[in-house]
Amino acid sequence: MQICVIPGDGIGSEVMAAATAVLRVLAPDLTLCEAEAGWGVFQRTGVALPAETLAAAREATAILFGAVASPSHPVPGYRSPIVELRRTLDLYANIRPTIGPGVDLVVVRENTEDLYSGRERLEDDGNTAIAERVITRTASARIVRTACELARTRQAAGRPGKITIVHKANVLRVSDGLFRTVALEVAADFPELTFEERLVDVAAMQLAAQPQRFDVIVTTNMFGDILSDIACIHGGGLGVAASSNLGHGRALFEPVHGAAPDIAGRGIANPTAALNCVVMLLEWIDRTHTAERLRRAMDAVASEGIRTPDVGGDATTREVTEAILEQIATQA
Amino acid sequence: MQICVIPGDGIGSEVMAAATAVLRVLAPDLTLCEAEAGWGVFQRTGVALPAETLAAAREATAILFGAVASPSHPVPGYRSPIVELRRTLDLYANIRPTIGPGVDLVVVRENTEDLYSGRERLEDDGNTAIAERVITRTASARIVRTACELARTRQAAGRPGKITIVHKANVLRVSDGLFRTVALEVAADFPELTFEERLVDVAAMQLAAQPQRFDVIVTTNMFGDILSDIACIHGGGLGVAASSNLGHGRALFEPVHGAAPDIAGRGIANPTAALNCVVMLLEWIDRTHTAERLRRAMDAVASEGIRTPDVGGDATTREVTEAILEQIATQA
Ligand SMILES: CC(C)[C@H](C(=O)O)[C@@H](O)C(=O)O
Ligand SMILES: CC(C)[C@H](C(=O)O)[C@@H](O)C(=O)O
Repeated sequence: MQICVIPGDGIGSEVMAAATAVLRVLAPDLTLCEAEAGWGVFQRTGVALPAETLAAAREATAILFGAVASPSHPVPGYRSPIVELRRTLDLYANIRPTIGPGVDLVVVRENTEDLYSGRERLEDDGNTAIAERVITRTASARIVRTACELARTRQAAGRPGKITIVHKANVLRVSDGLFRTVALEVAADFPELTFEERLVDVAAMQLAAQPQRFDVIVTTNMFGDILSDIACIHGGGLGVAASSNLGHGRALFEPVHGAAPDIAGRGIANPTAALNCVVMLLEWIDRTHTAERLRRAMDAVASEGIRTPDVGGDATTREVTEAILEQIATQA
Repeated sequence: MQICVIPGDGIGSEVMAAATAVLRVLAPDLTLCEAEAGWGVFQRTGVALPAETLAAAREATAILFGAVASPSHPVPGYRSPIVELRRTLDLYANIRPTIGPGVDLVVVRENTEDLYSGRERLEDDGNTAIAERVITRTASARIVRTACELARTRQAAGRPGKITIVHKANVLRVSDGLFRTVALEVAADFPELTFEERLVDVAAMQLAAQPQRFDVIVTTNMFGDILSDIACIHGGGLGVAASSNLGHGRALFEPVHGAAPDIAGRGIANPTAALNCVVMLLEWIDRTHTAERLRRAMDAVASEGIRTPDVGGDATTREVTEAILEQIATQA
């Protein structure tokens, strides 16, 4: 089984080094191949997502993605490789769980359309810009279905089985009207779940202030981008949040954090989010026992106080990783 | 001077009753006229914003707006009256201040374009919906200029004079690229201020978790809608948050809260947000002394524990209002 690792820019390569080190030990039979993407390769070659990378990603069963730096201003020809990968590989479901004190929720974000369609144009001598927000029946139905199936699985494990459909249909009457209608149609197939609706502004406020209210949130791409970042704060912050991007028989796992240029190169990036990606990957390929081993090792190391500076420690990325590898060795 | 009062639906009329009672006492020379808008009038007449209301709003110097209920699903012919008023009267700057422990920030939200342009269409037999996100140079420049002028005034009163420009130009390269470029051009005219940029997802997360970081936030319409609701939680919540919608020589003041159908008709709505709108209105017409009187009366009543249930008391809307009127009478 082939795993494609795309470290990307900044701390992306630092945390992916941790991820691959752990994966080599825990699942030595997997073939890891590394591929380039991001701002660095764009600056060298003019392409942010090289054809070889796309081909390697396509061939792999799963992809581990680090982080890519966005240029601070729009650069002609540069498109975000992660957005490209999601769309090209049709990784339509972005799953972003948050677990924290009293909080256990998942944001299920549509991953292929909306304002991420790349359909933008200038008019009126460059004085007016138009971006097209594209919402389709097909993409809406499959993301809501994914959310419902997830909620059902979680319900079997004791969670409330509640879906919050987030939209802004009071303003986006046609596009979110479609999303909402389709969502309620799909809902009818899941009588065991409960459904509620929230306007995105209210959802954002409640997610910030009362995250315990939520179980599974399902929404369109851009709203999901915003909501999942808010959710992070209840789960230990960006240093730990991991996400999966699921398509048909294919998955990409990535930390929610970015390339963090401010700390890149200093060896102090928190590898937790990347290692949580490895946990997710192992679960996705049905190696739940191995996933559990990694989780336990990470917990043990964290409770020993071996932590990176962002979470109050003074350990380096490498020290945390080595402590985790030692824990794993002890388990074995 | 004419003030047009539009109570709207649900608790809108309850809190506007408080606002007008106070305004009659504090500024008896103002002419108050009342006009209809919202879901209720739409159900009776098929029009959510009647022509007479629009005419009355146009003639008035300022408008006090309560709240309107949105139908739970998109209804043919129904458009949100508040969105219509903002656009038709060109109330281009939505100013949403939040003051709380350690927090003193303002969200300055563009109010006339973006996904609020009402440009939506169906394609592909209704299976695809497209909403156009419209960003113009003109609207971007004037909203950023408004934010900068506000930051400068606040700086004179001891605030840091910092503007956070919020966009998603890493994805919306053309439309938020334009917003960003124009914002930085305008920034050059305000060398006394400091400027920073934030991607909207990061801004939302930081606004939820670290609101002290912010002074003046400026952004496009939909992002501003979301961010200002998040900001609310640091300022006593939706029960107190008020906003102004400013155009050329014209202003509309409205609570950030909605029509609250769950508590409407029970006489227990918190009038604080509506009364904060009166404070803003009085300041806007340069009656700062009178505004200060109202503010003091409200503070006194709150610290006597006369509060509505949403903020831990058991007083009705009317009891809070009467206590405030008594305080005002004592001052006089
Ligand atoms: C880097 C950026 C294009 C990306 C997004 O907007 O989806 C990121 O914010 C995320 O949430 O994965
Ligand atoms: C009621 C709705 C149309 C409105 C908006 O989205 O602007 C509200 O959420 C607000 O923030 O004033």
